Amino acid sequence: MSNDRQVASGLAGEEAIIQGFLAPLARGFAGAFGLKDDCALLTPEPGTELVLKTDPVAESVHFLPDDAPGDVAWKALAVNVSDLAAKGATPIGYLMALSFPAPPSTEWLTAFAQGLEEAQQQFGCHLMGGDTDRRPGPITVSITAVGSVPGGGMVRRNTARPDDAVFVSGTLGDAALGLLLRRNARLAAAWGLAAADTEHLRRRYLRPQPRLGLGEALRGHAAAAMDISDGLAKDLSRMCAASGCGAQVRLADLPLSTATGKALAADPRLVMAIAAGGDDYEILACVPADKASDFVAAARLAGVGMTRIGSLAVGSEVIFEGSDGVPVSFPSSGWDHF
Amino acid sequence: MSNDRQVASGLAGEEAIIQGFLAPLARGFAGAFGLKDDCALLTPEPGTELVLKTDPVAESVHFLPDDAPGDVAWKALAVNVSDLAAKGATPIGYLMALSFPAPPSTEWLTAFAQGLEEAQQQFGCHLMGGDTDRRPGPITVSITAVGSVPGGGMVRRNTARPDDAVFVSGTLGDAALGLLLRRNARLAAAWGLAAADTEHLRRRYLRPQPRLGLGEALRGHAAAAMDISDGLAKDLSRMCAASGCGAQVRLADLPLSTATGKALAADPRLVMAIAAGGDDYEILACVPADKASDFVAAARLAGVGMTRIGSLAVGSEVIFEGSDGVPVSFPSSGWDHF
Repeated sequence: MSNDRQVASGLAGEEAIIQGFLAPLARGFAGAFGLKDDCALLTPEPGTELVLKTDPVAESVHFLPDDAPGDVAWKALAVNVSDLAAKGATPIGYLMALSFPAPPSTEWLTAFAQGLEEAQQQFGCHLMGGDTDRRPGPITVSITAVGSVPGGGMVRRNTARPDDAVFVSGTLGDAALGLLLRRNARLAAAWGLAAADTEHLRRRYLRPQPRLGLGEALRGHAAAAMDISDGLAKDLSRMCAASGCGAQVRLADLPLSTATGKALAADPRLVMAIAAGGDDYEILACVPADKASDFVAAARLAGVGMTRIGSLAVGSEVIFEGSDGVPVSFPSSGWDHF
Repeated sequence: MSNDRQVASGLAGEEAIIQGFLAPLARGFAGAFGLKDDCALLTPEPGTELVLKTDPVAESVHFLPDDAPGDVAWKALAVNVSDLAAKGATPIGYLMALSFPAPPSTEWLTAFAQGLEEAQQQFGCHLMGGDTDRRPGPITVSITAVGSVPGGGMVRRNTARPDDAVFVSGTLGDAALGLLLRRNARLAAAWGLAAADTEHLRRRYLRPQPRLGLGEALRGHAAAAMDISDGLAKDLSRMCAASGCGAQVRLADLPLSTATGKALAADPRLVMAIAAGGDDYEILACVPADKASDFVAAARLAGVGMTRIGSLAVGSEVIFEGSDGVPVSFPSSGWDHF
């Protein structure tokens, strides 16, 4: 079908896309068979278990139509690898199904593959298998990521306990503010941001960095962990619901980047975006109190700063305490598709 | 977002869809954690390797808007499991990402989950993890299936050799004719079909049956195998291209069901749809000549009929010989999305 378009785009069909742009991403993983077989083959290391995750991204829902293709590719892989990181897993590879409403241009595919290549190298994994098709609707990148943990090592979500210390990695809110800035560039001036601040927030939105370095620290010390993708407020509530406990968090203790700190000082209402905005891809970890200092030290050794933001509690209430000591509520906390 | 719709559909968000309709499909697979964790955990059997495949289906592209939700679900899983079957693998489980342009109704989800449950039971696998989101465009079901083979047992695509016997399982063309009938019900009379014939072709299109029983026969005897999803003409050409050989096939030897035999007798032009129409989900296997009879016997023991349709040859030409001995060409053989 659509021979005119094929000529215009310079692509001779699915096979040309797969062999020209995707197969190079599978080099280095023997079981991908150069994307020339129907399936991928994975030989697990003895004594390991596999951790699997699928989380597709779609244009205008998870990324913006004017995002660079390389950034789209990076994020599509990063959001899945971030889940593996939170479980203490090491990425092995991923399968990817690409859907386009019209044949993509060579330029788009080149930039997209380049972004994936950069992400793969950073995360230490390879493309194992893929599929491309054409259908109406937004461009969609459906990735299924596979990682490994030592047997019994996966860090769960529902195993946190009252009195555990609540930690988050890195800084929160940067990506949410980065998205606000992309929608309204004039906010940078209103928030008193320097060019470097704006760029920092923009990068944090476009190129999330899964906290893969934390694997050993999490497996060795954390009672439970998950990545923060839909906002701290919602994701902490999920962890508490799964574990059957409540939590008390002090908003003043949330770790902020210099840029986000400036913005919050200029507009205190931004605390909502910071605590519930999503796209952080940081790790939320609950750690038994007697292991907290060892956990922080192990994370520091791995180059990741962890900040204690509160504690778990008996009950089911998840309380975010404002700087005035009064609980803040997040009426529609976090992102829900329905 | 969209609180009105939530009330109308009776669904309270992603969590309600996952826990209400999908979590029951994960019962029986401990590493799914009731779909309450971020990732699935798979503990490979010692000595086995894993075979992975992702192939999404979308409304109006891979299934019709008036297909019953249970049939859509069945097919979404079957097309992936069929690839595992062709590799000699036994299904373990699958991850599934569901995308809807609008919140699905309780009725739709109930029927969809019922179809998946039936397929899971037949194929012997479970839901391991899932994701739902809302986006414009067609309803999409993105499944990634995982199976296992004894170490070294995966049957490849690129390992066929000249002089291998070419076999196909079951019968060809039924699904392609079933689709033609769905688009134009009057063809049934033109083809002289009884009601049972029509129903047979319809079912073959809607509820493909992956040939899982063939695993041992394939692993023990086949040089190469793949499933026929895009039509025999295209898929055999792919196998030959991957293996560096040609093939000679006699169209008169293609195995046909009673219904397809009647239709072909009424309209000989249907040979094109039969040999290149797609959606067969039968197995194409190339078997060294000295193993051919053992292969057929092993398949028969497993309850699957295999038919020899030709041989591989030196060179790169894939020749389909008509009943008059003249080669038939398939100008745009098989389905290509671009």
